[in-house]
Amino acid sequence: MEKGYVAEKEIQVMYADTDMMGVIYHGSYIKWLEVGRMQLIADVGYDYVAMERSGYYAPVYNVNITYKKSLKYGDRAFVRTWVAKNTGMRTDYGFEIVNGDGEVCTFGTTTHIVVKKVNGEFKPVAFKKVFPEWFGKYEEIKVDEG
Amino acid sequence: MEKGYVAEKEIQVMYADTDMMGVIYHGSYIKWLEVGRMQLIADVGYDYVAMERSGYYAPVYNVNITYKKSLKYGDRAFVRTWVAKNTGMRTDYGFEIVNGDGEVCTFGTTTHIVVKKVNGEFKPVAFKKVFPEWFGKYEEIKVDEG
Amino acid sequence: MEKGYVAEKEIQVMYADTDMMGVIYHGSYIKWLEVGRMQLIADVGYDYVAMERSGYYAPVYNVNITYKKSLKYGDRAFVRTWVAKNTGMRTDYGFEIVNGDGEVCTFGTTTHIVVKKVNGEFKPVAFKKVFPEWFGKYEEIKVDEG
Amino acid sequence: MEKGYVAEKEIQVMYADTDMMGVIYHGSYIKWLEVGRMQLIADVGYDYVAMERSGYYAPVYNVNITYKKSLKYGDRAFVRTWVAKNTGMRTDYGFEIVNGDGEVCTFGTTTHIVVKKVNGEFKPVAFKKVFPEWFGKYEEIKVDEG
Repeated sequence: MEKGYVAEKEIQVMYADTDMMGVIYHGSYIKWLEVGRMQLIADVGYDYVAMERSGYYAPVYNVNITYKKSLKYGDRAFVRTWVAKNTGMRTDYGFEIVNGDGEVCTFGTTTHIVVKKVNGEFKPVAFKKVFPEWFGKYEEIKVDEG
Repeated sequence: MEKGYVAEKEIQVMYADTDMMGVIYHGSYIKWLEVGRMQLIADVGYDYVAMERSGYYAPVYNVNITYKKSLKYGDRAFVRTWVAKNTGMRTDYGFEIVNGDGEVCTFGTTTHIVVKKVNGEFKPVAFKKVFPEWFGKYEEIKVDEG
Repeated sequence: MEKGYVAEKEIQVMYADTDMMGVIYHGSYIKWLEVGRMQLIADVGYDYVAMERSGYYAPVYNVNITYKKSLKYGDRAFVRTWVAKNTGMRTDYGFEIVNGDGEVCTFGTTTHIVVKKVNGEFKPVAFKKVFPEWFGKYEEIKVDEG
Repeated sequence: MEKGYVAEKEIQVMYADTDMMGVIYHGSYIKWLEVGRMQLIADVGYDYVAMERSGYYAPVYNVNITYKKSLKYGDRAFVRTWVAKNTGMRTDYGFEIVNGDGEVCTFGTTTHIVVKKVNGEFKPVAFKKVFPEWFGKYEEIKVDEG
């Protein structure tokens, strides 16, 4: 796959996602970012659900999200996701959410670590060591935004 | 405790609970019913969190909810919960959600079974057998709405 | 369209829809029912978003939902929706949510009235009078489950 | 009020806020930040609900949130909120969410602009001009984290 590969996925926008301002509630976008990451992970050949079944998880360490333009119920929404940084311990995904006219409504990054569930507790592990091939795929496509 | 005991708990209504109609989204009430049940369970001397830690769960089998009057963001909301039926296999909780003026906005019942997690699967068990004292408390306070 | 017409729509199940039981949270299904109704409305040739823009809303008066089988994250989910009753004042939609194997996981009805927003307040109106053609379509396809 | 004033508010953590990792879903914290801001606004003598009724809104422009430690259902949670920056056009609120042992689980900032609803569209306005007294209060208490 090429450097800077961007996964794209349409989001099913629901009435429940709106708020009393009459637009999509800003917190609703957070769950859409997951849909974007799942798509990117599937596109590079992995399966996040299978990963969790094997006892590993990739929880969110940081979210940095900027809202430029609101979405309304009835608008189409697409999430575009790429690997921004891949250090072996942390992975930064870049994302943008675009409307049906291709306008960027929201953008930012999410940072993830990998943890293993041991006796009900989550212990950090190195993505690079535990999933070396997956890590290699991310090396191929990462953008390294600096 | 007396027959027909009603647990009451104030709900923290959040902006996220609203929708584009400008009122509280009808789906938001579902999670408040849980707050009401937790309060009732605490009032009779039990702890739902401890129950789940011991491997038992009380999933929802049925929800029947009627909306009479909308709530708005900024309104106060209280959930009132009681045991409507207690058959040994199923428990029906009655509920109503009232606003700051004491008006009933929403009411209904939720029906629950008890299950045990065994090897990742949930197996139904009899509430009466597994938690006989708790069941006894419910016998004391149940309304038996018929 | 034929009597008993059933609209079908796949749901985008999100990680956010899960709960600590490890399954889809029972409250998450409520918003999916809306997706099902939107699809049915679109299939009969109407547009719920346009209806709201014109000042009319179809709020939920009652939800009766039964949970038979849980869904997990990674499962496919489809909502099937039909007109169960159509009295002119109230519309009952029947629904079921099926998994990727076609098993019914959840089923029930939602009852709706139509209201008009006048000076920030919602006034009930008769669906039959305000949207006679739409009402006629529902007469054609309704199941009248009794 | 003193420089660096911190509003504190307990959060009502709900079962619905959990996810299949067995902890509070990371997206759930977003709505709690609003509860924190409402409390800060109330503490300085204003009312966000009244502000919206008068046609002004303070939408979120940016959220930067870091997760250090997870919360579980049954844990207590408190949101602490302060004015980090106050430039006249944008307000940055600092926040942290602490558990019942006072440990910081999550922290970050949210950035807001003020908009006015005119004919269904939101137009940016200067907080300093439209709400000069409120702006003055924030000048008093702001931390100016740099």
